[in-house]
Formats: sequence, C-alpha cells, structure tokens
Amino acid sequence: MTPPPSQPAADGLPDVSSLVVGILGGTGPQGRGLAYRFARAGQQVVIGSRTAERAAAAAAGLGLGIRGLDNAATARDSDVVIVAVPWESHADVLSPLRTELAGKIVVDCVNPLGFDKQGAYALRPAEGSAAQQAAALLPEARVTAAFHHLSAVLLQDPEVDGIDIDVMVLGDERAATDVVQALAARITGMRGIYAGRLRNAHQVESLVANLISVNRRYKAHAGLRITDL
Amino acid sequence: MTPPPSQPAADGLPDVSSLVVGILGGTGPQGRGLAYRFARAGQQVVIGSRTAERAAAAAAGLGLGIRGLDNAATARDSDVVIVAVPWESHADVLSPLRTELAGKIVVDCVNPLGFDKQGAYALRPAEGSAAQQAAALLPEARVTAAFHHLSAVLLQDPEVDGIDIDVMVLGDERAATDVVQALAARITGMRGIYAGRLRNAHQVESLVANLISVNRRYKAHAGLRITDL
Repeated sequence: MTPPPSQPAADGLPDVSSLVVGILGGTGPQGRGLAYRFARAGQQVVIGSRTAERAAAAAAGLGLGIRGLDNAATARDSDVVIVAVPWESHADVLSPLRTELAGKIVVDCVNPLGFDKQGAYALRPAEGSAAQQAAALLPEARVTAAFHHLSAVLLQDPEVDGIDIDVMVLGDERAATDVVQALAARITGMRGIYAGRLRNAHQVESLVANLISVNRRYKAHAGLRITDL
Repeated sequence: MTPPPSQPAADGLPDVSSLVVGILGGTGPQGRGLAYRFARAGQQVVIGSRTAERAAAAAAGLGLGIRGLDNAATARDSDVVIVAVPWESHADVLSPLRTELAGKIVVDCVNPLGFDKQGAYALRPAEGSAAQQAAALLPEARVTAAFHHLSAVLLQDPEVDGIDIDVMVLGDERAATDVVQALAARITGMRGIYAGRLRNAHQVESLVANLISVNRRYKAHAGLRITDL
C-alpha cells in the first residue's frame, strides 16, 4: 500500500494524486465510466473483474494506462477500492476478498434497486444498505459509500469535459471519508461532500430510483448539487 | 373548492395562483416558513393548528393576509393541504381529517427521523414512508410528497429573497403532482421537479438525515439542485 498522503490540499483534504484506484465491477458501465474519469484525471487505475482476461480487455478498450486484473489482484494492488458491481452479486464478490481488502479504503457505490413495469424502487438489504452489507462482510476494511448518483453515460462520454455533480460521501471514519472526498474532487466538475455516517447510506443509495424517474420524465441524465456550500 | 386551474403555464404546468394553500402544522418552523413564502408569492394561505387560537396567533405574527384556523377548518377551506406536522403526531393529525381531505391534493413534507448522540437517522414507517402513511389514512385524498429538503431558517428569513433549491415532487397522479410542481415554482428560486411515485418517498424523506450531517460539517443550510434539467 502506498504510504498515507501527507500533503494536504488547500481545502483541507489530503493529496490523493498518488493513490491507486481499483474498481471491482470495472467492466460494467458505471465501473468503466469511473475508471475512465479517474484515469483522465491522472490517477492510476486498475479494473477488476471475475477473470483477468475480461478485465484486461475492458482496460485495453479504455486506454489511458488503465490495467485489468482479477478481483483479488485488483484489491491487493489498489489503495482505494471502489465496489461497482451489480447489487445481485455484491455479497458474492466481496465475501472472498476479506483478506485482500483488510485495511483498505473501500468505496461502495452500489444501488440496491428492483424494477417492475412502474419503474425502479428501493430494495432493503438486511444490513440496512449495500454499504452496511460491505462493512459487515469486510470488518477489517475502512468502508465508505459514494459515487451513487453518477450517470454512466456521461462518465463514459469523452466529449463531456466535466461532471456537474456533488458526490455524497458517507462513512464512520473521518480520515477515510476525507480521502474519498479528495478523490471525487479529482474529477473535473465534481465535489466530494461529507453526507453522514454509514447508517444513513440506504436513502442515498435508493435515491437513484428517484433520479431514474427524473430521467424518464425529463429525458435527462440527472445528478445532484448541494446548495449553500 | 376552487375550480381546477385551466390556464397552463408556459412550462406546461397549470396556473395555481388562485389556489388556497392550507398548512397543517403551520405553527411550527417549517410550516411558518412555507406559509410565509407562499403568501409572499401572492398565494392565499391558511395556517392550521389544533386550536384556532394558536393558528390565529401564528398567522397574525406572519401578516401578509395569512389566516389561522383549526386543522379541520383549514382542510375544508383549502384547495391544497400541506402536512408539516412532526412525524410523532402525523397519524393523529391526519386520521380525523379523512372526510375534510377527501378529493383534496395533500402534500406531505414530513421527515420521519430519529436522533441520538451520533445525529439523525431514518425511521422506517410501517407503511414505507410518511407519505404512504398519509395515503393509507386518507384513501380519498390525492396524496403527494414534496418540500422535504427546505431549511426552515432560510424560509422564514425575510432577508432571503430566493430559495435556491429544487423541490422533489412525488405522487401517483400526474394532475396532482403537476399542481404541486407549479406551487413550488411560485416561490422565488424554487423549481418543482417530478421525482417518482409515492413508493419512492422514503428515501426522499430520510435524505434529510444526510442534509443535517452536511449542515453540521459545513455550517450550512444545505438544499439540493437537480442537474441536467
């Protein structure tokens, strides 16, 4: 693991420019989009997938020096590990990585949603939220939650220069949420805003159901900004 | 009840300028703030409380032609009824008003939250959300949910000219959510944005716990804007 960042940024957040960002589920639209944006911001990025071959293919498609490894190697080689897998495979992907993720900052961005003919609706994980499930499965990891409300379409579009959004960052450890806030701020247009403890992750995750309704009604790629900050 | 509005606004929403807005719980900070803003926007406003005396006193304190009545009379005399009571008295206030609220547009803005030494956290009503509880208690009413994320401090401050926020409007009936969106747009700075069905109200209500965390960390009166609209 890279030594902890020591040079604080002007806004009081740490310098995270040297941290390696791993993305579990990095071959999906959200994961590819985040990988692209972090690499474009100058961050070292590793895409993780069930097989190294699939990850390497996705990484090659993105370029920008992004590497592709299997999930365990991605977890080992990264300082901060973003979880961008579908909710359906969330527990199955994380459970075997407990050792690899011990001590790492984990950023859960999974939105547990169901879909029917009336659209999307919130699912209620037994642990309270996807992020709390991650914390339960990874007791030695430094689990945070963030990056829920991003449009994969905008993230992946190279013509889009900035992502007009505030990223809500949740977690129970200040040093970890500070790092995640600083990472969010690396992407042009984004701010990382502390938005509470992990026990308040459920509503942030499931608000994506509302943004899907907004997108359908207004033909938009809606995101959120927090006012008065 | 005033006849339904017929003159559509330029953005496709109805003209709601002649509708009487009643506010149950209008003597609390959120209710007084909404009453002040709607009256300032030129809307006829009635504040409701358990006793007419208390409502009249709050109305007199606000001026701007605001009237104060007991809750039942407020429901009868209003076209649109905003529910701004504390969660703890939500069911008790609404249950006796089923007849008065039949056919009316009801706008629930109640946030079921608990508080402990770590701050605010979401409560989980048996019906799913405060708005769904209102719909269960008022089966003949046209129940919507909106106005959850407003700062009572900013609403009540006469020096604040505009409220920099997008109001998420939820509901299962398009004509009702259109009216509520149009009402939100009457307040300077606000937009009313359709954000899904009532079954997705819980996360909108409980997101207030996160905004409280934001406010504590940043000494702010945080609100939300939806981007790409």
